[in-house]
Amino acid sequence: MVNFIGVSDIQRLVHRIGTGAFIERLAREIEHDYRRWREFEKSARLASHSPVGVIELMPTTDGRLYSFKYVNGHPKNTAEGLLTVTAFGVLADVSTGYPLLLSELTVTTALRTAATSALAAQWLARDGSRVMALIGNGAQAEFQAIAFHRLLGIRELRLFDVDPHATAKLERNLRATPELADLKLTRTRSVAEACKGADIVTTATADKRNAVILTPPMIAPGMHLNAVGGDCPGKTELHADVLRMPGAKVVVEYEPQSRIEGEIQQMPPEFAVTELSDVVSGKASVRAAPGDITIFDSVGFALEDYSALRLLHTLLEEERGAHRTIDLVPELLDPKDLYGGTLGRGGARGRMRLTG
Amino acid sequence: MVNFIGVSDIQRLVHRIGTGAFIERLAREIEHDYRRWREFEKSARLASHSPVGVIELMPTTDGRLYSFKYVNGHPKNTAEGLLTVTAFGVLADVSTGYPLLLSELTVTTALRTAATSALAAQWLARDGSRVMALIGNGAQAEFQAIAFHRLLGIRELRLFDVDPHATAKLERNLRATPELADLKLTRTRSVAEACKGADIVTTATADKRNAVILTPPMIAPGMHLNAVGGDCPGKTELHADVLRMPGAKVVVEYEPQSRIEGEIQQMPPEFAVTELSDVVSGKASVRAAPGDITIFDSVGFALEDYSALRLLHTLLEEERGAHRTIDLVPELLDPKDLYGGTLGRGGARGRMRLTG
Repeated sequence: MVNFIGVSDIQRLVHRIGTGAFIERLAREIEHDYRRWREFEKSARLASHSPVGVIELMPTTDGRLYSFKYVNGHPKNTAEGLLTVTAFGVLADVSTGYPLLLSELTVTTALRTAATSALAAQWLARDGSRVMALIGNGAQAEFQAIAFHRLLGIRELRLFDVDPHATAKLERNLRATPELADLKLTRTRSVAEACKGADIVTTATADKRNAVILTPPMIAPGMHLNAVGGDCPGKTELHADVLRMPGAKVVVEYEPQSRIEGEIQQMPPEFAVTELSDVVSGKASVRAAPGDITIFDSVGFALEDYSALRLLHTLLEEERGAHRTIDLVPELLDPKDLYGGTLGRGGARGRMRLTG
Repeated sequence: MVNFIGVSDIQRLVHRIGTGAFIERLAREIEHDYRRWREFEKSARLASHSPVGVIELMPTTDGRLYSFKYVNGHPKNTAEGLLTVTAFGVLADVSTGYPLLLSELTVTTALRTAATSALAAQWLARDGSRVMALIGNGAQAEFQAIAFHRLLGIRELRLFDVDPHATAKLERNLRATPELADLKLTRTRSVAEACKGADIVTTATADKRNAVILTPPMIAPGMHLNAVGGDCPGKTELHADVLRMPGAKVVVEYEPQSRIEGEIQQMPPEFAVTELSDVVSGKASVRAAPGDITIFDSVGFALEDYSALRLLHTLLEEERGAHRTIDLVPELLDPKDLYGGTLGRGGARGRMRLTG
């Protein structure tokens, strides 16, 4: 039997330890895995594009565990009452090829994206960062707020979205989250106003185009930019001049993928970037001077889903049997007798170990 | 909710109409899809190799439905009581990116492989074929027997396997299958003896090496060879000279993949082959003379899994609600409020439509 985590299970698992604590634990797992970056088999995601969206498969392995994520992106879905992005994934045992865990990853992707953002900021943002601008108050916003409150010590959020309903939704959700009781929320009327006085600027907008959310005049020396929303070809958030500002240093997850999908798709191939793995393993020191502008050009990489699936698998094991399983793979008394153990008379007589 | 077909469900669905009838219906679906070959987005499978096996993802789409299969191959698994090959897959809606069906594909892959073999033989084997040699009596053998009995009218099987236990298992299973009551089974002591007098020779051996199961002296003019077992780099079953025999014509599923994985990996890149799509759409007439030797160099292609998943989805719909579903994707009252609808207070208050 294969372990199964549905939407109701992820709710239970996260509520058991709290959303902030879950994100913190996940950030440590992701950090651990980025530190052994060389052990992972890496490839750009396998994408299937249609006129209305994209479906992608994102596999990776470290030679012991294998994982993949299925994820779609359909901006027009919300008009039909559906999610823009849904995802699920599998963790498998490389030594047998058997799947170990099938899990929802819609909620989990939001958690791991925020965990990765906060992890990068812990290494890149200046010490004592307390104020964050949060541009784009949609599906990812609450997760970013919780992650930066917990892992960075952010105590004021300066909110902006072109859609005031999105900001209202975010405020409502954050006010209803007990662990954020000491978080000050400030509505602003423009991106520039949101950025004013911020130590960190997070952009998590959903527009599927080369948008210009941030321009150089909004950026002060010493800021850390956490650019989450630009994550596919033709979808960016930063004006190219921001990437060229004096003292600007860009960090990416997996350079070959980010050259295609990240903010740096706007830059020539020789534009210098640093990979996150070199940052979290201490090999690269990105913030050299207090006035440097650090930019985490995040697109999401398969390793982060691998880390999340492994953490979920561990959390299930800690529950000791309370979780659901599905009969995704036959369990045969004689593995050489697939027909007899399933469709043949043996199958009907219960020669299989499972009962379904 | 996403439809779910586990091992117990595939047993129910196949038993409902019978294994032979299921394979026949599947063969017609596969034929229908190969006839609109140009509509499919095709790519070689995405493989992750380890010292003990391989894990592969096989996606395809026709612009309306998207499917992928996860499949492993670990020859050493049987020694541990596990299957060499397990598989599962997903059918998704291209217009929304939402998964529609998650299904076991271990049993289904065996069914679709046999369906594809029989489909190709219907187009390639000479009329009135009644005797088939079945070399390799392992996991795939029963499925091939049922498919060729049903779709080709095979009435005698000449069995051979290096492992007599495998042949005994096959005989036992076929004897216990009522729809095969008129099928004569003949044990033979060698591959050459099995081939003697056969109209069709099916090889479905599992050895992961360049084996030489068939050599030219075993092959008579007019035979159809159904080479199922050679399906990855370094794993072949036919002596290269068989492919070079006078009058030999080779048919493959998807040429770029078969050049790497099929029997033709032994041949130079310019070696002529015909794609199955051209055969089943009547564009290519492969058997020109009665003495021609037709060879279906089968490795399995993603389109066949697509056809199988679509058929399973249709069969579920025919059952009208008796099937299982899983909460793989959140169903939110407000699709823009992922946090509030899942982990936030709204999630706990049941703002989600599902109960898990």
